[in-house]
Amino acid sequence: MRGKFIVFEGIDGSGKSSVSAKIEERLKSSGRRVLRTREPGGTPIGEKVRAVLLDPANAEMVPWTELFLYMASRAQLVDQVIRPALKEGVDVLCDRYYYSTAAYQGAAGKVGIPVVLKLAEEVAKFQRPDLVLLFDVPPQVARQRAGDRRDRVESKGEAYQERVRRGFLKMAKADRRFTVLDASRPADEVFEAARKAVDRVL
Amino acid sequence: MRGKFIVFEGIDGSGKSSVSAKIEERLKSSGRRVLRTREPGGTPIGEKVRAVLLDPANAEMVPWTELFLYMASRAQLVDQVIRPALKEGVDVLCDRYYYSTAAYQGAAGKVGIPVVLKLAEEVAKFQRPDLVLLFDVPPQVARQRAGDRRDRVESKGEAYQERVRRGFLKMAKADRRFTVLDASRPADEVFEAARKAVDRVL
Repeated sequence: MRGKFIVFEGIDGSGKSSVSAKIEERLKSSGRRVLRTREPGGTPIGEKVRAVLLDPANAEMVPWTELFLYMASRAQLVDQVIRPALKEGVDVLCDRYYYSTAAYQGAAGKVGIPVVLKLAEEVAKFQRPDLVLLFDVPPQVARQRAGDRRDRVESKGEAYQERVRRGFLKMAKADRRFTVLDASRPADEVFEAARKAVDRVL
Repeated sequence: MRGKFIVFEGIDGSGKSSVSAKIEERLKSSGRRVLRTREPGGTPIGEKVRAVLLDPANAEMVPWTELFLYMASRAQLVDQVIRPALKEGVDVLCDRYYYSTAAYQGAAGKVGIPVVLKLAEEVAKFQRPDLVLLFDVPPQVARQRAGDRRDRVESKGEAYQERVRRGFLKMAKADRRFTVLDASRPADEVFEAARKAVDRVL
């Protein structure tokens, strides 16, 4: 049987990574095989691309370069990791996917959401997830949580993060794969809501 | 006055680089300001992407990753180098451009020419050249000339190079910006034909 593909989305500091780690634990303890990966990166080539993307020395990077680098890392991850795992019956949990590109470079950048979605879904034909968990949280809350983890992306300020957040919410409204979680609640409540959504697609 | 944007295309060993160097010399000696650049690369970020693309250790790279990496490097070159130079009245000579991606990843790969052209021209809106010089040569001839310069791309064999070549010729037929040069002729004749084509767009 084919594995389930579950994506965790949201701005930095929304708590998606710690919940995805707990979901991994839970699925494994129920006997399922699980692979947890991250974007950008997740493959040797993808990690090299990730290093270029997140290097603060590359601050002069233009939006289209950023977008194409994310797509490059993702193409490698989809073909080398995600598709083979699902085929072997392994569940794949992925922190960030092309919805992040659509929210950051698309909605908050100049490119727009539709171009990114079209590129990902119709042109490059990336694997569609079974479930997208959107960890929705106001940027102020996320910023406090993220603490010192401020790379090039996080340094762009709260107004930018709010545009990203609204981009995510817009996609969630248009796509039934999404479940929106109020991630400003206590961590155990957020996990409980995530767990329920995951159980529905298993 | 805006500078002219001239692109040199063809398979490896077609002689495009040495002709483009001579064209640079000639334009400069006639008092024009000229910038010669190359793809992939041409910017600090682009050179980092180039290193990932041309590293033989990355042989497991999937076609879409390759395509997006070329587009990423190019987006940076267009915005940081090509557009500003043309605006200042500097002529830009570029060894390879998005037609290479359309020929290699599009025609010889699985992606197809139209997807790449659409992505470059309509989606990312890359600067259109004033002239594309296509150095057309049979792969056997090119292979002898290229000698030891065999990276990951060149190692794919003559049948592959022939598909690339046919991809270039197909685009040339459909786009008036192209001038096809028979690059199997002696070097001075090829240069002379290139010079004439350049003079027509100045």
